[in-house]
Amino acid sequence: MSMNSGSQHPATIVIVGGVAGGASCAARMRRLHEDAQIIMFERGEHISFASCGISYYLSGEIQERRKLLIQTPERFNARFNVDVRIKSEVIAIHRATKSVEVLDHKTGQQYRQHYDKLVLSPGAAPVRPPLPGIDGERVFFLRSIEDADRIKAYVQDAYPRSAVVVGGGFIGLEMAEGLRNLGLDVTLVEMAGQVMLQLDEELAEFVHQHMKLKGMKLLLGRRVEGFGDAPDGRLAVTLQGGQELICDMAVCAIGVKPEAALAREAGLELGPHGAVIVNRQLQTSDPDIYAIGDVTETHDLIAGVMRHMPLAGIANKQGRLAADHIAGRQIAFDGALGTSIVRIFDLVVAGTGANEKTLRGSNVAHEKSYTHPASHAGYFPGAVPMVMKLLFSPDDGRILGAQIVGVDGVDKRIDVLATATYAGLTVHDLPKLELAYAPQFGSAKDAVNIAGYVADNVVEGDVELFHADELPALIDNDTFLLDVRTAGEFDRGHINGAANIPIDNLRDRWQEIPTGKLLLVYCLTGIRSYLACRILRQKGFRTRNMSGGYVIYCAMNPLECPEIPGLRRWQRLLALETFCSTPEERKTLRRTDE
Amino acid sequence: MSMNSGSQHPATIVIVGGVAGGASCAARMRRLHEDAQIIMFERGEHISFASCGISYYLSGEIQERRKLLIQTPERFNARFNVDVRIKSEVIAIHRATKSVEVLDHKTGQQYRQHYDKLVLSPGAAPVRPPLPGIDGERVFFLRSIEDADRIKAYVQDAYPRSAVVVGGGFIGLEMAEGLRNLGLDVTLVEMAGQVMLQLDEELAEFVHQHMKLKGMKLLLGRRVEGFGDAPDGRLAVTLQGGQELICDMAVCAIGVKPEAALAREAGLELGPHGAVIVNRQLQTSDPDIYAIGDVTETHDLIAGVMRHMPLAGIANKQGRLAADHIAGRQIAFDGALGTSIVRIFDLVVAGTGANEKTLRGSNVAHEKSYTHPASHAGYFPGAVPMVMKLLFSPDDGRILGAQIVGVDGVDKRIDVLATATYAGLTVHDLPKLELAYAPQFGSAKDAVNIAGYVADNVVEGDVELFHADELPALIDNDTFLLDVRTAGEFDRGHINGAANIPIDNLRDRWQEIPTGKLLLVYCLTGIRSYLACRILRQKGFRTRNMSGGYVIYCAMNPLECPEIPGLRRWQRLLALETFCSTPEERKTLRRTDE
Repeated sequence: MSMNSGSQHPATIVIVGGVAGGASCAARMRRLHEDAQIIMFERGEHISFASCGISYYLSGEIQERRKLLIQTPERFNARFNVDVRIKSEVIAIHRATKSVEVLDHKTGQQYRQHYDKLVLSPGAAPVRPPLPGIDGERVFFLRSIEDADRIKAYVQDAYPRSAVVVGGGFIGLEMAEGLRNLGLDVTLVEMAGQVMLQLDEELAEFVHQHMKLKGMKLLLGRRVEGFGDAPDGRLAVTLQGGQELICDMAVCAIGVKPEAALAREAGLELGPHGAVIVNRQLQTSDPDIYAIGDVTETHDLIAGVMRHMPLAGIANKQGRLAADHIAGRQIAFDGALGTSIVRIFDLVVAGTGANEKTLRGSNVAHEKSYTHPASHAGYFPGAVPMVMKLLFSPDDGRILGAQIVGVDGVDKRIDVLATATYAGLTVHDLPKLELAYAPQFGSAKDAVNIAGYVADNVVEGDVELFHADELPALIDNDTFLLDVRTAGEFDRGHINGAANIPIDNLRDRWQEIPTGKLLLVYCLTGIRSYLACRILRQKGFRTRNMSGGYVIYCAMNPLECPEIPGLRRWQRLLALETFCSTPEERKTLRRTDE
Repeated sequence: MSMNSGSQHPATIVIVGGVAGGASCAARMRRLHEDAQIIMFERGEHISFASCGISYYLSGEIQERRKLLIQTPERFNARFNVDVRIKSEVIAIHRATKSVEVLDHKTGQQYRQHYDKLVLSPGAAPVRPPLPGIDGERVFFLRSIEDADRIKAYVQDAYPRSAVVVGGGFIGLEMAEGLRNLGLDVTLVEMAGQVMLQLDEELAEFVHQHMKLKGMKLLLGRRVEGFGDAPDGRLAVTLQGGQELICDMAVCAIGVKPEAALAREAGLELGPHGAVIVNRQLQTSDPDIYAIGDVTETHDLIAGVMRHMPLAGIANKQGRLAADHIAGRQIAFDGALGTSIVRIFDLVVAGTGANEKTLRGSNVAHEKSYTHPASHAGYFPGAVPMVMKLLFSPDDGRILGAQIVGVDGVDKRIDVLATATYAGLTVHDLPKLELAYAPQFGSAKDAVNIAGYVADNVVEGDVELFHADELPALIDNDTFLLDVRTAGEFDRGHINGAANIPIDNLRDRWQEIPTGKLLLVYCLTGIRSYLACRILRQKGFRTRNMSGGYVIYCAMNPLECPEIPGLRRWQRLLALETFCSTPEERKTLRRTDE
């Protein structure tokens, strides 16, 4: 059945789930089809609420609860003539009769509702492993506004002084920050060796160190086995191996899983991650049933695999597209890059496209480069560095992904790179991008241009890179490790076995370097060592530049270098700019710090 | 002569001008060619200084003069082995002998310097029309750090209380803001009917009103005819028609013109704007002489015409490319979009690609749409609206240009749109862009996605637009002007002759609308009227939606609507977020304001 706009055959479209994708779908459907009957079922009390704002409501950064309620059923109905039924749970799909079974939680009654087209947008639910004590009243989960109300009430009434957050994904980090900002001692426990699995390990290390600087405890590679009462009546969180963390409350944010039970029971096809499989028209294995948002799995445009990407942006896009297709239009949702961002205290962490782990796992040929550009022109107040990791094809330079950690301007650069990746641009294009420059906003060579120059030099063969994690395999009698930073920098910390010739002395002292060896050159960030490689190569040496410099070396070797150079300085810089009221104060502070 | 990297034939490269493009060229040249002799002549005292920061140094936003001096000749030489000669003016090019005539201002001596390749990067100089009194000591120009020193000294020593700024381009606006922030009464005089000719008129109106809100006087369409002494000894600025502005100082920022005298005298080809013509390899009409940066004219990638684009980003890119070509590499500089940005008090104004004036002048078919998205999710504190104007091809939807006015997030959106324009994307692509969403940074449907949806609806024919400036020609007996805002909004101001049916009542009251007429529908921003058009079209009406709504109507009709709706509110919102320390204060202020 095709329903063109203005069609004289009103049809019934039933949408399951009234948040993000569901609400987008309903509104678009109405604009395309004024005469359709549109019914939107929502199990909870609220439609179109700001689920990405819940943790900020909890921490008080968003003060008013009503701010999270973007639409009420009444206003949505007045505007879009959509029959919104809240507290109404769809408990079964009868595909043969094209109807759904609805449980009205207000009355306890069940009824059937016919559909011509059904759109599933139930979202994803927090993972809730069957651990002892996980249902205890001091163990919290966060999905709905009511969950936030419960945690808020507990924090206000029970005066907890310490919390354990289980899980280092987006929600876990936001919760940890929120509770820390409320004054609690917070310990974050993460099963993997790093937080934020979207990031590669060395970038995650920036987050680890920043969290520690902010006074949080971080237990990585540790698994929680249960929750119980400590002898003093407080909450005991038991880790694998028996260690107990005694605290006043725990929040579990172990991950989310697609709410696919309804689809599974209706016999719709699910993928290996337990998410609903849809075609490029967002149809499930039953062409009259669409699925959108967090309940589905998404084609990873870079790695070429199916992944579960629970992101609001994707859900919203899909909601609109599903409506378009139901209205008889041609659509194709080809997949996603999975662009994401999160703020953790002062740090902003963002990524787009594939990370290195994924590329390695998918056998996609890739090279990487690291840069440390400033958020805007260094001569204008407030400029702070960031770390960019760019992944690209070593053959044609196509951009495969990017990750950025910084405090300012991160969102802008990841959006530019997401756009470039979407457009299929290569690293050769990045230097050509004309990005807006005034000293408050960028540099004449913007951070993205610089990343492009660096990667372009690699693809063009102007410089050969090596990476800090390859160093153990590279060091032997045929290599010579050269640090071209100043003597002062070298003395404050360097890689074991390196010789030091500062870049500005290199043209006078290059004869000190043994000939016939492969030179492994590094500096703090990779800029000076790049110039050194160029100089030495033209003197006849074989050279390789350590991408990202000593900063990335330290991030890759946290045991050897407990502090990433510069990270504490970023934090200070930020604090200075933000909290010191007078320029004099700032100057004084800066002086004592340096 | 080709000089491949590592070549054994050292050559002499002479660069004229040590700022932006020149310094970039020298550094890149050295990296590619360790053995070349590189000589960089700079007429002034400083190389590689932050010319885009001078007006902020003047206003005190950049406090330390040394911050502007990004490189010293000594450090540049130590790092790049470049023979930097400051206070050395190249006064002639002898193409026949491949040499330049240099005047050493330190000694007064002249000498010749041979070159194999010559790179001209002299920049552009302020336009200095031959007006009576323009050389007076209270009339200032701003190009160099020394100019800023002079103005700074005058402000500190002579306690001027009022200033006239002549010219409403980037520098004029920055100067006006800087002097205003120093406490002066500032009047800005601009010959054209608008400031910032990069912008289309209606977008410039946001800047006009914001400047007035900030207490500045603005005289548009007025020409300055001379400067003289007022009877009380102050400075009199005479306007065409005889009006005199009495003030304590004047700053002329009438524009810049390419410093092309040297090239012209050497017989190199100049374009109609008096700028040096270069080919895609950045060579002038003499293939051994390159020209880069503000002295050249640039191919406008969208309009297909040659324009003078004095932008630091372009100069830097060209500097590097010229070095690449001299080193024997293949390069092609195809042209530029001219992305630019400026902050004026709280407003940020940015553009990329062509504006409507240029497209009209170049006979490029174009359509436009206006949107008013929020800087980030409305439920997170600090969200402020912006105005986006998108220009695109009505045929294939290709993006031709964009302009944005707002207070936050403007730089990010213009950079995304600049990247999309560079990549040749269409409005159909914009909704698909996956831009990073967390509530501090954006929305699940980002501002750029929304602009894409709106333009896509136009190209797809889902809605037909009209523009506020077409209204006089459209209104007749066959049209019906419909305002779908609330009764309260309507009462506070509406377009003459409009009927009012609020959107949420439209499904009950559409029968009130006369049939057979073309409906011209508007609301505040264009969203509600779009839905109204969809509803009414499906009821059988012919409809057109006023793009950008009443906000843009007011910006296009400043005489009829002296205040753009919302602009004062932006300003308040911003002041509230920035200056009020407690949430209670903010709430109080907000309440009294609404």
